[in-house]
Amino acid sequence: MVTKSKEVPTATLLISCPDQHGLVARVVNFIDANGGGIVHAAQHTDVDSSLFLQRVQFELDSFKLKREEIAPAFDKIAEEMNGSYTLHFSDRPKMAIWVSKQDHCLLDLLWRHRSGELPGEVVAIVSNHTTLQPIAQQYGITFHHIPITKDTKIQQELKALELMAEAGVELIVLAKYMQILSAENMARFPPTINIHHSFLPAFAGAKPYHRAHERGVKIIGATGHYVTADLDEGPIIEQDVTRISHKDSVSDLVRKGKDMERLVLSRAVRFHLENRVLRYGNRTVVID
Amino acid sequence: MVTKSKEVPTATLLISCPDQHGLVARVVNFIDANGGGIVHAAQHTDVDSSLFLQRVQFELDSFKLKREEIAPAFDKIAEEMNGSYTLHFSDRPKMAIWVSKQDHCLLDLLWRHRSGELPGEVVAIVSNHTTLQPIAQQYGITFHHIPITKDTKIQQELKALELMAEAGVELIVLAKYMQILSAENMARFPPTINIHHSFLPAFAGAKPYHRAHERGVKIIGATGHYVTADLDEGPIIEQDVTRISHKDSVSDLVRKGKDMERLVLSRAVRFHLENRVLRYGNRTVVID
Amino acid sequence: MVTKSKEVPTATLLISCPDQHGLVARVVNFIDANGGGIVHAAQHTDVDSSLFLQRVQFELDSFKLKREEIAPAFDKIAEEMNGSYTLHFSDRPKMAIWVSKQDHCLLDLLWRHRSGELPGEVVAIVSNHTTLQPIAQQYGITFHHIPITKDTKIQQELKALELMAEAGVELIVLAKYMQILSAENMARFPPTINIHHSFLPAFAGAKPYHRAHERGVKIIGATGHYVTADLDEGPIIEQDVTRISHKDSVSDLVRKGKDMERLVLSRAVRFHLENRVLRYGNRTVVID
Amino acid sequence: MVTKSKEVPTATLLISCPDQHGLVARVVNFIDANGGGIVHAAQHTDVDSSLFLQRVQFELDSFKLKREEIAPAFDKIAEEMNGSYTLHFSDRPKMAIWVSKQDHCLLDLLWRHRSGELPGEVVAIVSNHTTLQPIAQQYGITFHHIPITKDTKIQQELKALELMAEAGVELIVLAKYMQILSAENMARFPPTINIHHSFLPAFAGAKPYHRAHERGVKIIGATGHYVTADLDEGPIIEQDVTRISHKDSVSDLVRKGKDMERLVLSRAVRFHLENRVLRYGNRTVVID
Repeated sequence: MVTKSKEVPTATLLISCPDQHGLVARVVNFIDANGGGIVHAAQHTDVDSSLFLQRVQFELDSFKLKREEIAPAFDKIAEEMNGSYTLHFSDRPKMAIWVSKQDHCLLDLLWRHRSGELPGEVVAIVSNHTTLQPIAQQYGITFHHIPITKDTKIQQELKALELMAEAGVELIVLAKYMQILSAENMARFPPTINIHHSFLPAFAGAKPYHRAHERGVKIIGATGHYVTADLDEGPIIEQDVTRISHKDSVSDLVRKGKDMERLVLSRAVRFHLENRVLRYGNRTVVID
Repeated sequence: MVTKSKEVPTATLLISCPDQHGLVARVVNFIDANGGGIVHAAQHTDVDSSLFLQRVQFELDSFKLKREEIAPAFDKIAEEMNGSYTLHFSDRPKMAIWVSKQDHCLLDLLWRHRSGELPGEVVAIVSNHTTLQPIAQQYGITFHHIPITKDTKIQQELKALELMAEAGVELIVLAKYMQILSAENMARFPPTINIHHSFLPAFAGAKPYHRAHERGVKIIGATGHYVTADLDEGPIIEQDVTRISHKDSVSDLVRKGKDMERLVLSRAVRFHLENRVLRYGNRTVVID
Repeated sequence: MVTKSKEVPTATLLISCPDQHGLVARVVNFIDANGGGIVHAAQHTDVDSSLFLQRVQFELDSFKLKREEIAPAFDKIAEEMNGSYTLHFSDRPKMAIWVSKQDHCLLDLLWRHRSGELPGEVVAIVSNHTTLQPIAQQYGITFHHIPITKDTKIQQELKALELMAEAGVELIVLAKYMQILSAENMARFPPTINIHHSFLPAFAGAKPYHRAHERGVKIIGATGHYVTADLDEGPIIEQDVTRISHKDSVSDLVRKGKDMERLVLSRAVRFHLENRVLRYGNRTVVID
Repeated sequence: MVTKSKEVPTATLLISCPDQHGLVARVVNFIDANGGGIVHAAQHTDVDSSLFLQRVQFELDSFKLKREEIAPAFDKIAEEMNGSYTLHFSDRPKMAIWVSKQDHCLLDLLWRHRSGELPGEVVAIVSNHTTLQPIAQQYGITFHHIPITKDTKIQQELKALELMAEAGVELIVLAKYMQILSAENMARFPPTINIHHSFLPAFAGAKPYHRAHERGVKIIGATGHYVTADLDEGPIIEQDVTRISHKDSVSDLVRKGKDMERLVLSRAVRFHLENRVLRYGNRTVVID
């Protein structure tokens, strides 16, 4: 298990570079030489692309470099490795939850947030409806009602994104938002996680439970993925499935699906917040 | 659990008809009036199509009608119900296994056959290669080598089907046969079960493990289905899945997949042989 | 799937008797003769004890007997079959939830209740603490604070049971109640369902997650069961499991366990409320 | 996934020591300084015992030390870390399979062995019966018939262990051996893996399927574990489960159980052969 930031603040490096000799040693030595205690290190080599992916988490209390000095110091190593990296601190990033009318994923995320399961801060709830506003009030979280019509979509999304930027949101969670994001705005979104109610790539698109019922599958699923311009085609973070039978009507699938959606979305969000997800190409490595 | 034919021979009626009042009573009374002890009865109503599906299994030892008299007697009831039905006896139907070069599904079916798990008789193994002939010899089962080229396919299939008919084969199992059956011959096939190495409808067609790896899914599956003219589109009998991660290469997927293929195919075959599968439209009801 | 009471009110007979010829027909005919449309019928014979168990659900709208006439009429048949039975109507029985300080199971049940997943009415929440009182207020449900000490336990339980009786409670759900019920009062409890946070019979008793961690198991579970005088030994209604690894600390087990507890308890409660659970000996048959 | 020995020979260090600063760096540097390319590195800290456990696998082709020089060189580091370690090379260790009369686990292991799934060499099959001798002959593997009676057990085990030693066996797999090993001989056994047909610690001891059926559990399991003097109490390597219902008789549990036993035992054996299992106390860390 990735050591979660508890008492001691930590930094996490997520690195990707062409596979080559001595990569583990180089990164480990950088941290060790600066007095950082390594609390977690894992690496993966994607054989097809000869890509080396590494996650290293280390304690900051004894580290000789200040937070703002780490990236400049590591830039040189990354350049030598011909690689790229991101640096994360064990602070609780700000996140927003975008919803429509269904409450199950929102309530689940808020309960987990309050229970301490999610190492982030929910600072805003955005919706194109007011149905779930009472839940936001009850939890004391800012609620933005951003109604959307076919004609106003692009503009309204931009308005919402401005609010996100003002609030310092680093992660958007689409918790049954039920709207396709505009391709025009895609580049302006911070990392955004969606829950799709099928076992992708099966039943991408609309009404997956109806189509699963019609096709007569014996198992249904849910998929948590990063949002990209290609609908339901973004990098998959987490999936899960549940068994069904002919005895299950579409409404039974919906009921069983809600349980999966809650579990899968919350796991995908947690993995992201724990800095355990490396994206490469259209895939992810989720370090456990 | 459907009571499997043990000491006492049984008959099983698989019935489908438009949903209407009194259906359960009518069938139950037919059997009871003739002195048949019901060992299993289950029914399902498909709400969308208002279709009533029923399975009734009853003991033959005390039944007043002879085997050959049952269908004629039940025809009248079926007509009144405006339904159709099939009648099965707890004999062990003859089956053939069609293979190519991979041995895992064949060996698994033969082992289960010998262990008494499959209530049928394997009377022939058919292959377009001779790779698995030694296994047939070892188990004392007739092996037919029917080589296939693009040009000879239709004819060679017909030749194989003749051999099947001569041997009284009532079920063909495609245990990694790796050939698409000719649409021209489809109507001549007895019920035929295939194993596809993906969680259909995801990754229908060729090289599903490679495509699963490339898409970055977190779970892979296998599907046992009846063969129809539409490739990988036939009624699904059974599916199962297994979790994978970025650490699994394509060859790991193949290894994990083989375990699933064995389990899923053998379950689909057993369900069929136990007369537990009702087909309707492109779906199945599998009575448990 | 058991047809859930929707528009048309239904009655459900849960019958157990010694296995004998003609049982299915006798019950089916009783209902058919009185004009009841059978919406679901299933039976099971326990081979070890030669016990026949049956569930039959039928529509009341066309039934010739009034609700209060059904039991007297069926008594005669039950007597002939040397059996016992219970009769249930598709009304929403009143239920109470007993809790201590943990909120996850309570919140989950209340959410499902509001969503229409649970065909019962939550009329009271009972707790030996006031921690969860705000949740009761929020949902507008009567909250009874019944503090318990070692010395007052038996008396306080009796007080709570009086409140249950006054409210017409037919089912008590122990949703992390964390108190062992007094053997002295056991006979006074209506059907009572508990969630135990282990895969029983493994880790019965206290601190199952700690003991699972110490034993080094690779999978943990949760069990929903009827409460009997023998702690954690009552008839099991539903179980589920989740995979763990050495990377999971005890607190990770607790987190993963909470998800299982919610799912398993809610399923067990739903199965009971849908009149799908037959108890016999220390076991259950859950009709699906 | 642990990189399996393919073309390039590798060495694997399995290390355990008290947790302390700089452990990862020290081991990584030892390998890097000697020119070894690290193909896999993973570590785990057991918080309760402050025990640090590490697995490092590195390529030998460019390594400056010869195989026989590695341990002497690493001894010094291990001493400084106050730790212990084992060193393994990517050779295929010799293994023996001990059986009784049931064939499913034996056949499964032999099939996987032949398919290249198991990086070891099966050099002997030992049995107290001759039932499975034909399988050994068929696969061309030496078969030792070592009959056992209550009185001869200790002596006969010693005889079998001598044969193991002569054949250079480094791993014994009890594939449904159905005999409790003598406590007197336990210390003489090489690492020995057993499959128990229950989800331990539930139903330790005899007849677990009967007891599972009697208890009315809804899920059954199988457990692969190292054998120790305490029956069914050894460190667990792998477990899996499958869902059952009241419809499953004891013989259905046996059938379902066989599928689990095959999967779980083969996984446990593969994990061991890939040098992925670290034992500590009565637990294991299985590096994936």
